[in-house]
Amino acid sequence: MRFDLIAFDADDTLWHNEIYYRAVEQRFLDMLSDYAVEREDALRLFHSIEIANLPDFGYGVRGFVLSLIEAGIQLTGGALSGGHIQAIIELGRGMAREEVRLLPGAAAALESLAGSHRLALITKGDLIDQERKIANSGLAGKFQHVEIVSDKTPAVYAALLEKNAARAERFLMVGNSLRSDVLPALAVGGCAVHVPTEMEWAHEAAGELPAGSAARLFTLRSLADLAELVKRIENGAG
Amino acid sequence: MRFDLIAFDADDTLWHNEIYYRAVEQRFLDMLSDYAVEREDALRLFHSIEIANLPDFGYGVRGFVLSLIEAGIQLTGGALSGGHIQAIIELGRGMAREEVRLLPGAAAALESLAGSHRLALITKGDLIDQERKIANSGLAGKFQHVEIVSDKTPAVYAALLEKNAARAERFLMVGNSLRSDVLPALAVGGCAVHVPTEMEWAHEAAGELPAGSAARLFTLRSLADLAELVKRIENGAG
Repeated sequence: MRFDLIAFDADDTLWHNEIYYRAVEQRFLDMLSDYAVEREDALRLFHSIEIANLPDFGYGVRGFVLSLIEAGIQLTGGALSGGHIQAIIELGRGMAREEVRLLPGAAAALESLAGSHRLALITKGDLIDQERKIANSGLAGKFQHVEIVSDKTPAVYAALLEKNAARAERFLMVGNSLRSDVLPALAVGGCAVHVPTEMEWAHEAAGELPAGSAARLFTLRSLADLAELVKRIENGAG
Repeated sequence: MRFDLIAFDADDTLWHNEIYYRAVEQRFLDMLSDYAVEREDALRLFHSIEIANLPDFGYGVRGFVLSLIEAGIQLTGGALSGGHIQAIIELGRGMAREEVRLLPGAAAALESLAGSHRLALITKGDLIDQERKIANSGLAGKFQHVEIVSDKTPAVYAALLEKNAARAERFLMVGNSLRSDVLPALAVGGCAVHVPTEMEWAHEAAGELPAGSAARLFTLRSLADLAELVKRIENGAG
C-alpha cells in the first residue's frame, strides 16, 4: 500500500501556537492582579467567555482578544482601565506578529516525505493568522495543497480527499488534536497519526473512536519518527 | 464566445454589507458624544486606525471592533468606560448575527445564469463571517466553486481560473469593487462587470485600468441586467 495523500495539521503540529495563547493569558492575569481579581476565578470565567464567543467570533487571535477584553471588564465590574484594555490589544498585536517556531522534527519529516508523497496542509482558524504563519514557516513549498478551514469535520476531510483524488484507505492525517485531526480523519476511513502536545487546549476533547478504526490510529511523540512510521504502515507492519 | 466561468463577489455585490459597518460607526459616534468628542475627528481617527490595523487584524467584524475600541480609548484619553467598551463588543456581536439581505436582482441573476454557466463565488474577508453569510444567503447551491480569500490579487484570480480550467478570455468577474473585483480580473485578461454601490468603503480606491482592458470592462447599475449583458457580450455585441 502507498498513501495517495498525507495531510498535516499546522498549529501545534508543525509549529508552536498554544504557548503564545497561554503566555498572553498569564499576562492578562498579572494585569488583573491590580484589581484584586483571583487568578483561578479569572481563568475560569475567561475560558467560559471564550467558548461562548466561538460561534460569533471564531478561532484565532482576534476572537481571543475580544474574549479577554470581555472577561476583563466583567471581572473588574467595569473598572478595567482604558490603558489596560489597550495593553490587551497590544498583546494581541504581538501574537499576530509572532515569529513562527517549528516543532522538533517537523521540517525533516516534510523534507523526507515530500520527495515520495503528495502532501497537504489543512488548518483550522483565521485566514489572516494562518496565511501569515504558512508564509513565515518556510514550509509552504512542501505542500501540493493548502487549505484553511473554519472547522475540521468529516465532510471537510471528504472534500479534501475528493479535491486531491485520494482514496480514503490511502489517506493519512497527521495532527495533535484528537477532535479536529484524528477522529474526523478516521471517520472518513483514513489513517491518522496523533502527535499529542503537552499543552492541549481545554476545548479540544476527544470523542469516541469510530467503530473499527483503532487499527488505523497511530501515536508518535514527535514528527521526527513520522517518515519511518509511514514506511512501516505502507509495508503493512504498522 | 461563451464564458467558461462567471465569478461573483459577495459583500455589497450579492448582499448588503457596508451599511452595517456604517450603522455601527454611527452608534459608536453617538456613544462618544457622552465624552464631548467631535464626530468628524472621531471618524477620521477611527478610519486611520482601521487601515493601520489591516495587516495585523485583517478585514471583517472582529478587526473592525478592535479598531473601534482602540479609537474610543484614544479619543477619550483612556476614559471610555467598561460599559461602553462592552457595548461596542455587543454591536460587533450583532453584526456577526445579522440576517443576510440580498441586493436587488442578485437572486434572479444567479437563477438565470446557473442553468447555462459555471458560477463561482470569490469573496475577501473572514472565514467565519463569509461562511455564515454564504450559508444564510440561500445562494450556495448556485455555485460550483466557492472561495474565501484574504485578498484579491491577480495571482488569486489566476489560481481561480486554473482550478476551474477556465481560460482568461472566457472569464467574467462581477463585483462592486474596482480594486478587488474589476482591476485584478482585467489584469489577468478576463472581462469584468462593475456594479458600483452608492456607499464605497474609503479604503477601496481604483487604480489605473490595465492597458488595453477598457473593452473588457462593463458597468451595471444592478444585477437585474446581468444575464442580458452576458448574452450581449457572448454574442460579440457587448
